[in-house]
Amino acid sequence: MAKKNQQEFVQHITPRSEDFSQWYTDVVRLADLMDYTPVRGCMAIKPYGYGIWELIQQQLDAEFKRTGHQNVSMPMLIPESLLLKEADHVEGFAPEVAWVTQGGTEPLTERLAVRPTSETIFCTMYAKWVQSWRDLPLKYNQWCSVMRWEKTTRPFLRTAEFLWQEGHTVHATAEEAQEETMQMLYVYRDFCEGVLAVPVYCGQKSEKEKFAGARATYSVEAMMQDGKALQSGTSHNFGTNFSEPFEIKYLDKDGTQKYAHETSWGVSTRLIGAIIMTHGDERGLKLPPKIAPVQVVVVPVAAHKEGVLEGAKAVADKLAAAGIRVKFDDRDNVTPGWKFNEWELKGVPVRVEVGPRDLAEGQVMSVRRDTFEKAPLPIEGLEEKILAMLDGVQQNMLDIARAFRDAHTADVHTMEELGEQVNGGYAKAMWCGEQACEDEIKDRFSASSRCMPFDQTPIGETCVCCGKPAHKVIYFAKAY
Amino acid sequence: MAKKNQQEFVQHITPRSEDFSQWYTDVVRLADLMDYTPVRGCMAIKPYGYGIWELIQQQLDAEFKRTGHQNVSMPMLIPESLLLKEADHVEGFAPEVAWVTQGGTEPLTERLAVRPTSETIFCTMYAKWVQSWRDLPLKYNQWCSVMRWEKTTRPFLRTAEFLWQEGHTVHATAEEAQEETMQMLYVYRDFCEGVLAVPVYCGQKSEKEKFAGARATYSVEAMMQDGKALQSGTSHNFGTNFSEPFEIKYLDKDGTQKYAHETSWGVSTRLIGAIIMTHGDERGLKLPPKIAPVQVVVVPVAAHKEGVLEGAKAVADKLAAAGIRVKFDDRDNVTPGWKFNEWELKGVPVRVEVGPRDLAEGQVMSVRRDTFEKAPLPIEGLEEKILAMLDGVQQNMLDIARAFRDAHTADVHTMEELGEQVNGGYAKAMWCGEQACEDEIKDRFSASSRCMPFDQTPIGETCVCCGKPAHKVIYFAKAY
Repeated sequence: MAKKNQQEFVQHITPRSEDFSQWYTDVVRLADLMDYTPVRGCMAIKPYGYGIWELIQQQLDAEFKRTGHQNVSMPMLIPESLLLKEADHVEGFAPEVAWVTQGGTEPLTERLAVRPTSETIFCTMYAKWVQSWRDLPLKYNQWCSVMRWEKTTRPFLRTAEFLWQEGHTVHATAEEAQEETMQMLYVYRDFCEGVLAVPVYCGQKSEKEKFAGARATYSVEAMMQDGKALQSGTSHNFGTNFSEPFEIKYLDKDGTQKYAHETSWGVSTRLIGAIIMTHGDERGLKLPPKIAPVQVVVVPVAAHKEGVLEGAKAVADKLAAAGIRVKFDDRDNVTPGWKFNEWELKGVPVRVEVGPRDLAEGQVMSVRRDTFEKAPLPIEGLEEKILAMLDGVQQNMLDIARAFRDAHTADVHTMEELGEQVNGGYAKAMWCGEQACEDEIKDRFSASSRCMPFDQTPIGETCVCCGKPAHKVIYFAKAY
Repeated sequence: MAKKNQQEFVQHITPRSEDFSQWYTDVVRLADLMDYTPVRGCMAIKPYGYGIWELIQQQLDAEFKRTGHQNVSMPMLIPESLLLKEADHVEGFAPEVAWVTQGGTEPLTERLAVRPTSETIFCTMYAKWVQSWRDLPLKYNQWCSVMRWEKTTRPFLRTAEFLWQEGHTVHATAEEAQEETMQMLYVYRDFCEGVLAVPVYCGQKSEKEKFAGARATYSVEAMMQDGKALQSGTSHNFGTNFSEPFEIKYLDKDGTQKYAHETSWGVSTRLIGAIIMTHGDERGLKLPPKIAPVQVVVVPVAAHKEGVLEGAKAVADKLAAAGIRVKFDDRDNVTPGWKFNEWELKGVPVRVEVGPRDLAEGQVMSVRRDTFEKAPLPIEGLEEKILAMLDGVQQNMLDIARAFRDAHTADVHTMEELGEQVNGGYAKAMWCGEQACEDEIKDRFSASSRCMPFDQTPIGETCVCCGKPAHKVIYFAKAY
């Protein structure tokens, strides 16, 4: 019915197999998620991209609150003297800080960093707020943007400014801080898998890869369709690394002053990159229903025929009333075929076509974005069927991504095997624990250690690199 | 029952009548809404203050979406060259811009403004995004923080950095832009009155008071309990003031290129200041239920007696299950009397006391924060009673504020009357339209013109200041 050949078709997307990087850029732009701006390395997130972020925010924020966290807002500018207080931290972040040196007409006596992360300002305030064991724990989070003066940038994956959340917590004991660190790591894991349908490996980072200033960093690591790793969230245990220089002490029940133990954890708009590169295909974006701004698009077919527009509108209203995020596409300047392609490109999980014959038979035609499966569904009780279908899409997308991830992960025992494996996936290897081996693997294969999984069942006895005795199981991969 | 005299009492709040400004500062600090930071003019918004902002955001954002707006995210840094494009705009904002001049280790060739407002970056992107009449209208909004290098700051009322939303829209015609400007003004009015219980005057700003770069600015003006005005939201019609220098043109249906018409509108964390100064009293904060992070606090009385804690907890759970935001205060280190005072200070609309005698009689004691009215309520069906009570508090707070506002607004016909009236309220006057008269009134009485109401029924024939023929009805007041 759609006069496909009479129209210019939806624009060309570079095939993934030809150039995955170009495919990504094409999808990001053609799905209208963002645009480049004249501000070096900073992007404008357009409504469709921001809509995904809002759904991420809502669902993750609910998890933060369920686990006892509260939101706050801290200044976006941080005096240089605060940034200098923790040595490793400043070393890690100073090279990529944007500096405010002038306020109004006056030059500043101390320059101010546009926050690259907010440990130092949180710690400054925590030193005021924490006095007694009764004040603990403090479990705060903020949603904001941060700025890192990156040399090369890519939409959502690495931008000078990006949106994120950063949790910062203070605890009385080392045990509680470790518990919090792990709790939030698992919140991220469950969110990635349960909401984004992005399976992740989680574990501890090596000393080389940990956060500047942390005692231990844990991460969730996703696998993109080119086999590369995308670090999708991190959770840090600081111990007393920050509480000592910032003097965050509390009077304990036993009457003595003690340094508090801290954590921080964050995810960013990078998650949108993870969604795109985990699920997308030659037709474009493929969004898991739980974060799809439009879950179902209703397209009238032969809309000029009597009753079709009204009938299709009624179907859309019925679905919306059931709490489904619905778009009714009644544009009259493009054909249904054009619309099908456009909404596939935008990754809408389910399309519902409503034509005169369908209406006469009291049904609609449904098409799943994940399988392209077409199925007629009765209008009576349609919302239950569609809700179940959305659940099915969500689960199927996770299953497919997990199968892909598992198929592209392999144990390796030699450097040759490792080099081969990281060309298109994760290599699981034994490692001696020395940074020299990480460096060599980086030099030879451009791969880095991702994380040490919690299941440390050995897969060998010697380091994949140096051959010395090794007790650590670790993943290596090329990474974004 | 509460051992009040055995305990240090909730801290002292300066009476409003003694020093309103100090009263405000006391309330802000003692209610734990924010804290000062080592960053000049920037505050930390603490969980209780941020909780109010989250409730403002949720409800206002729903209104924006209902009226067809979508959220986006624009860069926080704006190249100086963009800021310079609209002459009035740069003149208005340049003196209070914080400048980034260094990125990482390299000095920048062009300095970047930390956004004081985002017209210039929105317009830059709109020039790319608007091509045809089919692209219009574009109705975007962003929630973010902005920075203005203010000399003197006060929590929530005027801070160097503040949180806000800024809507920016593009329309085909002047009529549509004006319609949008008014629609959003009324969204703000209805929000202030219906959600914050803050009555407002709305109208058009004078040329002197309008936004830098706007053709016309409209505002909602609240009255604080010291009779001073607080501008609580603004809505601007730019006409083609920005679209011309930024070249935002579209191909119209008639085949000609036309400049688009634009609007912008915003409210900020200043609204929290408006709530405090409209409703607060000698006991502290008084929050309208619709934006109270805690709507009902449940306090067990004689908690050591058998069944009291459990019974009080069951009451709290029952209310929470009905969708009420409830705090169950089971602290064992302070008395009920202490808790009563603390939650009154924090402005919680309704307190529910649960003691052993209450439980035996199947009831609780309710206390309204607005009237201090005490009433026993049966536990059976308590949630409906409390929901109705919350509605009652909300309405009563608006009624009281409106009565106060009306009682402190008066028509004035002479400068003497005006000077008297602006000492504790709004003066409604006839004005010739000349800025010289506004300047004189500012010089003599420190009062400024607030807005020209839409009902322009004359209250005289001559200008209150110069005595020349006057056709404009306008409000004057001292303002925050």
